[in-house]
Amino acid sequence: MLETFALANGEFQLRRATEADVPAMVELLANDPLRAAAESVAPEDRGPYLDAFRAVDGDTAHLLCVVVDGAGFVAATMQLTFLPGLARRGATRLQIEAVRVHERLRGQGLGSAMIAWAVQEGGRRGVALVQLSSDAARPEAHRFYRRLGFIQSHAGFKLQLL
Amino acid sequence: MLETFALANGEFQLRRATEADVPAMVELLANDPLRAAAESVAPEDRGPYLDAFRAVDGDTAHLLCVVVDGAGFVAATMQLTFLPGLARRGATRLQIEAVRVHERLRGQGLGSAMIAWAVQEGGRRGVALVQLSSDAARPEAHRFYRRLGFIQSHAGFKLQLL
Repeated sequence: MLETFALANGEFQLRRATEADVPAMVELLANDPLRAAAESVAPEDRGPYLDAFRAVDGDTAHLLCVVVDGAGFVAATMQLTFLPGLARRGATRLQIEAVRVHERLRGQGLGSAMIAWAVQEGGRRGVALVQLSSDAARPEAHRFYRRLGFIQSHAGFKLQLL
Repeated sequence: MLETFALANGEFQLRRATEADVPAMVELLANDPLRAAAESVAPEDRGPYLDAFRAVDGDTAHLLCVVVDGAGFVAATMQLTFLPGLARRGATRLQIEAVRVHERLRGQGLGSAMIAWAVQEGGRRGVALVQLSSDAARPEAHRFYRRLGFIQSHAGFKLQLL
């Protein structure tokens, strides 16, 4: 267990994801209207997700997190990646990806608590910069990150191969 | 040696960077007006760059590249990072960071050749998506990536800690 968040709607625990959390994390990813078509919650499609989980979990550069409520229900997930690089005098960056909060728990401070914890964890590990990109179709997410002190300084580009 | 680029202004070789390339890569980073204040080419400041080089070079998730001309002069650099993740059915992404081409060699196709090679290398390694972010103050870079087929789909956020 990495952290406890005591929110108005209950207590939540942030912890490192385990393989048993994969189905719940895939559900969170698939419940995103912007990405639903790219995901599958069907058990027969679970193989690639499990392979990906093992690749992420097996590299200390990554910290894949879930947040669970008192009943163990997976309420949210995010992936932190620590990226070394030469730029900025050899600065390590923390990149936050795949942030998802269950729709029924949004607007109650859980996302803010997760991102604030991620930034603190970056500070503890000595990162110079926290970075993330958010789809242009998510203006409410952009407001959320600006409220948390992030500067919308970059344009994000994607080239899909598969 | 990873690739040869035969351009109108000569032949260039793309290869994995070595520790001996660090000073030349730092010079490329420091010659960027947007980032000059964040870098130092002073030999006494080289330690953190060398530490970062070793962290990048020691993890197979990264491929730090230089492009050299026929005389061995370091003309360009870029860092490729292969990022596993659960999203998009467990897709691996290729992230391109810290792309720098020497000012005297810009506009001659070297940057395009490097990015095209990076995309091909992503394809060879089975990535589903190539992603990068580019500072809002670099509109010419944004046009460059759009010309190469990238979609400007995301907003990039940064939070500086150090």
